[in-house]
Amino acid sequence: MAKIDMAKFAKFCKDNGFIFQSSEIYGGLNGFWDYGPLGVELKRNIKDAWWLDMVRNPPPGPDGQEIRMVGLDCSIIMNPKVWKASGHVEGFSDPMVDCLKCKKRFRADKVHFAAAKIDDATRALSVEADNQTDAEPVLREKIAKLQKKKHPLGALATATDLQFFSASNLPHGYPRPCPSEDCDGTLTEPRAFNLMFESHAGPIASEENKVYLRPETAQGIFANYRNVLNSTRLKLPFGIAQIGKAFRNEINPRNFTFRSREFEQMEIEFFCHPGESMKWYEYWRDLRKRWYSTLGIKSDNLKPREQGTDELAHYSIGTTDIEYLFPFSDEPQELEGVAHRGAFDLNAHAKHSGKVDDLAYFDEELWNNDSQKLATRSFKEWLKGNPTADEIGRYKFVPHVIEPSAGADRFTLAVLCEAYHEDKVPDKDGKLEERIVMRFHPRLAPVKCAIFPLVNKDGMPEKALKLYRELKPLFNVFYDDKGAVGRRYRRQDEIGTPFCVTIDGETMQNDSVTIRERDTIGPDGKPAQRRINLSEVKDVIFKALSPA
Amino acid sequence: MAKIDMAKFAKFCKDNGFIFQSSEIYGGLNGFWDYGPLGVELKRNIKDAWWLDMVRNPPPGPDGQEIRMVGLDCSIIMNPKVWKASGHVEGFSDPMVDCLKCKKRFRADKVHFAAAKIDDATRALSVEADNQTDAEPVLREKIAKLQKKKHPLGALATATDLQFFSASNLPHGYPRPCPSEDCDGTLTEPRAFNLMFESHAGPIASEENKVYLRPETAQGIFANYRNVLNSTRLKLPFGIAQIGKAFRNEINPRNFTFRSREFEQMEIEFFCHPGESMKWYEYWRDLRKRWYSTLGIKSDNLKPREQGTDELAHYSIGTTDIEYLFPFSDEPQELEGVAHRGAFDLNAHAKHSGKVDDLAYFDEELWNNDSQKLATRSFKEWLKGNPTADEIGRYKFVPHVIEPSAGADRFTLAVLCEAYHEDKVPDKDGKLEERIVMRFHPRLAPVKCAIFPLVNKDGMPEKALKLYRELKPLFNVFYDDKGAVGRRYRRQDEIGTPFCVTIDGETMQNDSVTIRERDTIGPDGKPAQRRINLSEVKDVIFKALSPA
Repeated sequence: MAKIDMAKFAKFCKDNGFIFQSSEIYGGLNGFWDYGPLGVELKRNIKDAWWLDMVRNPPPGPDGQEIRMVGLDCSIIMNPKVWKASGHVEGFSDPMVDCLKCKKRFRADKVHFAAAKIDDATRALSVEADNQTDAEPVLREKIAKLQKKKHPLGALATATDLQFFSASNLPHGYPRPCPSEDCDGTLTEPRAFNLMFESHAGPIASEENKVYLRPETAQGIFANYRNVLNSTRLKLPFGIAQIGKAFRNEINPRNFTFRSREFEQMEIEFFCHPGESMKWYEYWRDLRKRWYSTLGIKSDNLKPREQGTDELAHYSIGTTDIEYLFPFSDEPQELEGVAHRGAFDLNAHAKHSGKVDDLAYFDEELWNNDSQKLATRSFKEWLKGNPTADEIGRYKFVPHVIEPSAGADRFTLAVLCEAYHEDKVPDKDGKLEERIVMRFHPRLAPVKCAIFPLVNKDGMPEKALKLYRELKPLFNVFYDDKGAVGRRYRRQDEIGTPFCVTIDGETMQNDSVTIRERDTIGPDGKPAQRRINLSEVKDVIFKALSPA
Repeated sequence: MAKIDMAKFAKFCKDNGFIFQSSEIYGGLNGFWDYGPLGVELKRNIKDAWWLDMVRNPPPGPDGQEIRMVGLDCSIIMNPKVWKASGHVEGFSDPMVDCLKCKKRFRADKVHFAAAKIDDATRALSVEADNQTDAEPVLREKIAKLQKKKHPLGALATATDLQFFSASNLPHGYPRPCPSEDCDGTLTEPRAFNLMFESHAGPIASEENKVYLRPETAQGIFANYRNVLNSTRLKLPFGIAQIGKAFRNEINPRNFTFRSREFEQMEIEFFCHPGESMKWYEYWRDLRKRWYSTLGIKSDNLKPREQGTDELAHYSIGTTDIEYLFPFSDEPQELEGVAHRGAFDLNAHAKHSGKVDDLAYFDEELWNNDSQKLATRSFKEWLKGNPTADEIGRYKFVPHVIEPSAGADRFTLAVLCEAYHEDKVPDKDGKLEERIVMRFHPRLAPVKCAIFPLVNKDGMPEKALKLYRELKPLFNVFYDDKGAVGRRYRRQDEIGTPFCVTIDGETMQNDSVTIRERDTIGPDGKPAQRRINLSEVKDVIFKALSPA
């Protein structure tokens, strides 16, 4: 997608009440963000759309069947044994390196020493230095500094094997120069740093009271698998969905809200028979890709990427990252991962909790239908006859799991980037003026409709307020009676309101109003306006808000 | 309200998927709870109702004016300076005492030694002992133990001055016997224990990196006061609303979800001119009381209680606790506090951040209207003429704040308690059978409507499924084709579904269906049933879901 000046974009988001830096009056806090008046409505709309489209009303399954989904809302702080079972206490860490001189800390796998890269940079700088006599001495100094970083192993590097030269997989003992431009120190060997935030529940900060802020919502779903089965009448296949906050103590939060320390996930764990798992993996992978498009993300910017076998977690049969080409990066970045997790999580919790039966599934229907041939014995009694593992596995097994795991903040950021359009239009004196139009999908737009009285007299404000009061219990509407109508349209374009309705002199005679649709461009190149009856306004907007 | 057996009630909530203990397969975690498939829908409905009724569509103000409200969603972890400014680092603590012998820990102000109380208890036990010869020795032993607890200061105690004898305000140095019945140890002097959960942002667990999980959502609103003013065109009075999780490291989490360590708040900070603050205090106090009634809480169980002057925080002019008579307690317990906080919070942040101007309000409209008499000078220029503080305060001042602060989990628990009805009805053999009916308000009910084909043939399932598919994008519906219809009604009563629609033979002929309304009792004492047209089902339900 077209590049956006990210500093300007962040300022736009702040000035219009989409996103603020957390605790800004105290200098902020690295990796934490607040949603302002428009941001909170946008993010609510995103979460509500997900819940409606995935939990309450998912499309039919691969064989046209109803998809059974339920929700869940677990606590952020759970028994720490959950995180031992899931592997997070042991393994959820990043390899870190510290500079012994400047004391800066880096993620080891993000520090590359590849000669190829440094050579490219010095070559580019040399060309620049040749062309700019004024800046030459500064540029030459930069080149000299960069060359000092050139790693002794550099001669082996090519563009394709950069990975080999990250600080985390460099052979033990090789020197690692500090990547800071102004520092000539050396990095330590990589050390594991756990990304979970720790705290203590109870009055004493003891090892025994240690708890973690969940780094993902998924484990709460696995831990409640049996409770959900017992409290509903669900049969395989079915999904459990959860929206909620998670926390990761990222070393380098960056790219605006993209990599934050506190973020919100929208996760589904879909449980199915192992024999049907590939079918369901494909169903969710395709559905989740499609969902982003139905909410206005252009397919050009949306990049589903099947992970290579070398990237896959050891238990995973397949994972697709649904990536988005954010304007801050040349590479698409992950919005969502759809992973086939096999039976890994349920097995891990069975092992750690000892509750093997609770984390399995008994296909009662199949057993009952087969029981004619098995006479009237109960399953329990039948087990006493020492059936083989294969025979048992026909009725009782650990389901496989497909996990579509989306980031609510990342999608919110993608929606903001996608909607953002800069434009230069002549003002009334013919001077070019920059204007910004946010082209949100109507379902996601924070304000659905603005209502203006053309002038503040002749009964127009009363009529406009009446419409405003009728509509506001139904969806978010904005009433504006300040300034010229053109100016009011501009304000609504800037916050992405899809519809503007103006009450004018004609309305007072025949109840017709002017409705302006932001994204329907008329013959004059401006948003199209048409007259409809007052009573139709509600339906025009409802229609735009209904799911695709 | 009628007492409920809380253990039975908690089991009911678990069995039906309302509330689970967090991490139950690992033995749970004290003070943390999860919402199951029905609980998550119930709580979503509560939060959505609050947002719709308070933020998007609040009733007109005391003078019939539109109420201006916006939302906000702040991070749970904020810059720790926020909590220094708010007073939480210094003062948000409970006085704790430890038993030197049994090592149990108690909240000092909850341990009472009043002789009056102990005497009452021993008297009651003596009467019991006199009447029950079998149990006599055990009871006599209990009495002896209780008398040992009798405090040396006990002679002074009367029923009205129990407060004097709590472990937290007993004069320094007086002995404090352990209140555990089986322990004859002594308590320590009270010590302050801060209730905020601590963690560290960044890789090093240093004092410098220390952060807190917010103990309330309110401070995020104050910290963003200027950002909200600058990004909207709001003028006083206006409100900022937020829903979100907060954490308090309670020593004794108890009463099911009532006192949890992790909970969700629904808070409003309403900013107004100091001269109008009492009017707005009354507006919010009355509106918030009324809101609970409109959602089905009987006024008998709802107890608003104006705090006495001795209870009020030093900065507060008035606070009303809206209390509810939970079945686990004889005393009503707080659902919500509506507090007049004056200018306390904005002043505290102005002082700590140094950003005095950012935390004040400049009444530009008033200034502009007055400017005729002040000629054309700007406010800034006018200030150079050294006007008095009173003169400046006319245009620039720190707003007062009214804070209606509700607990989403507490209200969810109240709704569950209020809806819960036990009933004994004869089964088909005339035997009395217990049944539970959840009488949720339709707006809050997790499932709005169940749809049944009377029998699974003659086109009924197809017709029923068609209706189900039409309704499910609109609200939560449930399809059930298993078992006798009476049995299906029972299942829906138990989960509080207000409407059941049955597709029967007549439907196949004339498109009429049977609709059963859970809470409309017919002449036979059972829920009333009537026939309506298929096409009317949607509107009947929408009508029940629209705000009062």
